[in-house]
Amino acid sequence: MSELARRCAEVMWANDAASRALGMEIVAVGPGTCEMSMTIRDDMVNGWGMAHGGFIAALADSAFAFACNSRGQVTVAAGFDISYLESARLGDVLVARAVERALRGRSGLYDVTVTRGETVIAEFRGRSRSVGREIEL
Amino acid sequence: MSELARRCAEVMWANDAASRALGMEIVAVGPGTCEMSMTIRDDMVNGWGMAHGGFIAALADSAFAFACNSRGQVTVAAGFDISYLESARLGDVLVARAVERALRGRSGLYDVTVTRGETVIAEFRGRSRSVGREIEL
Amino acid sequence: MSELARRCAEVMWANDAASRALGMEIVAVGPGTCEMSMTIRDDMVNGWGMAHGGFIAALADSAFAFACNSRGQVTVAAGFDISYLESARLGDVLVARAVERALRGRSGLYDVTVTRGETVIAEFRGRSRSVGREIEL
Amino acid sequence: MSELARRCAEVMWANDAASRALGMEIVAVGPGTCEMSMTIRDDMVNGWGMAHGGFIAALADSAFAFACNSRGQVTVAAGFDISYLESARLGDVLVARAVERALRGRSGLYDVTVTRGETVIAEFRGRSRSVGREIEL
Repeated sequence: MSELARRCAEVMWANDAASRALGMEIVAVGPGTCEMSMTIRDDMVNGWGMAHGGFIAALADSAFAFACNSRGQVTVAAGFDISYLESARLGDVLVARAVERALRGRSGLYDVTVTRGETVIAEFRGRSRSVGREIEL
Repeated sequence: MSELARRCAEVMWANDAASRALGMEIVAVGPGTCEMSMTIRDDMVNGWGMAHGGFIAALADSAFAFACNSRGQVTVAAGFDISYLESARLGDVLVARAVERALRGRSGLYDVTVTRGETVIAEFRGRSRSVGREIEL
Repeated sequence: MSELARRCAEVMWANDAASRALGMEIVAVGPGTCEMSMTIRDDMVNGWGMAHGGFIAALADSAFAFACNSRGQVTVAAGFDISYLESARLGDVLVARAVERALRGRSGLYDVTVTRGETVIAEFRGRSRSVGREIEL
Repeated sequence: MSELARRCAEVMWANDAASRALGMEIVAVGPGTCEMSMTIRDDMVNGWGMAHGGFIAALADSAFAFACNSRGQVTVAAGFDISYLESARLGDVLVARAVERALRGRSGLYDVTVTRGETVIAEFRGRSRSVGREIEL
């Protein structure tokens, strides 16, 4: 885990009430990467007894955010695409692993795979955009 | 608001702890459509003082779910794409309006626009898939 | 059809060997919009007797390009998403209609619907990025 | 190159006038994978002197089609997302490599990376759907 990525993650996490409220935990961060976990709670299941897709997307989105801010530049999500492959259920421990696929100027592309053990739950592709200033460490 | 769409929404809502926990409210439902609102709370803002994108996606995803289940068939999200156009902040009241763009056999395509007043916050496009059984009303 | 949009389209078209080689025709252009047509030829059908999806995407991509360059700024495609709803066949006359959904700073979002008569063949959503200089008219 | 994948590719290629007309060549196919190449010709460049994005998408789409039909099931594209990272120019030799990310029942997800030498030109993610019958070999 690189020193810069670790410090960027600390600053972000300190202010990230949303990810904390969802019970997320940072497993690892590095240059352009992040691994984050979350357990599906009873306030995260939807009408069909499955995890609301929005929370799976939120987990992937958080891993994406930490990965694309890991190089010290304030970077925001321009958008993302997610494909759901398997449903997740109450009590499932999900892990999202974000990797940088491309970084050209201020634009980046990140792939996040959400898994439960060996099973892939969702594939997410995030599009990032740096705003042009550094993260205050 | 058609009778079938209204009854489908009631059944879904009764079991949808996730959308209720996020403070969402159904404004209207109809055949292939849904309008849903949510206020950005302090547990929904991220490290840069803006609403965590995952919650905006979750709101759009819920409106999408109610729209694609409004015709009486149990239907799940296959995936979606979202583009963020403006950031949302603490206290913002967001409204997501879902409309059906296409329904061919079991596959559907829905557009959801998330707004704060006149301002478009995000454009979402959801891909749905019916599982082949009716919602138990 | 606004004068600026028309002149931008003329400049683009004069150099656009690709769209011309595919037999595309500009039906109309305006501020943020473009309507373009193309007939499916025998060199555009794939192994299953249907139009190769790439040509449908290319038609939508051209309509998108003319729409996002219609305001006088050199603008390129950052990417797009396309959903195929119906197959197209030899001899089909397809029409792509592009409309601007959002334009924030240098980033734009455009929806393109490809139709054959009343039938929607594909829904396309393009993401554009202006490079920061004007089109030389 | 597996025997089944090779035979599926032969059948598809024999009927794929579109890919042949664009000068594509199959470099390799295997179970869930395909590598295809194409050289940018003068009828593929657009108004700004760059390869029309539609042809880059068409190359990726063809590699995707051969990959998702490699297991012997007639499979069509439901849609795809493409992000352009670098422009391509006249004479560039592009290579598209498709890999299967997921296959669940009749639905598949394929990633295609388009490169020119070591440079990544575009990242493509295709969504496939099998129609329920086998390819006649």
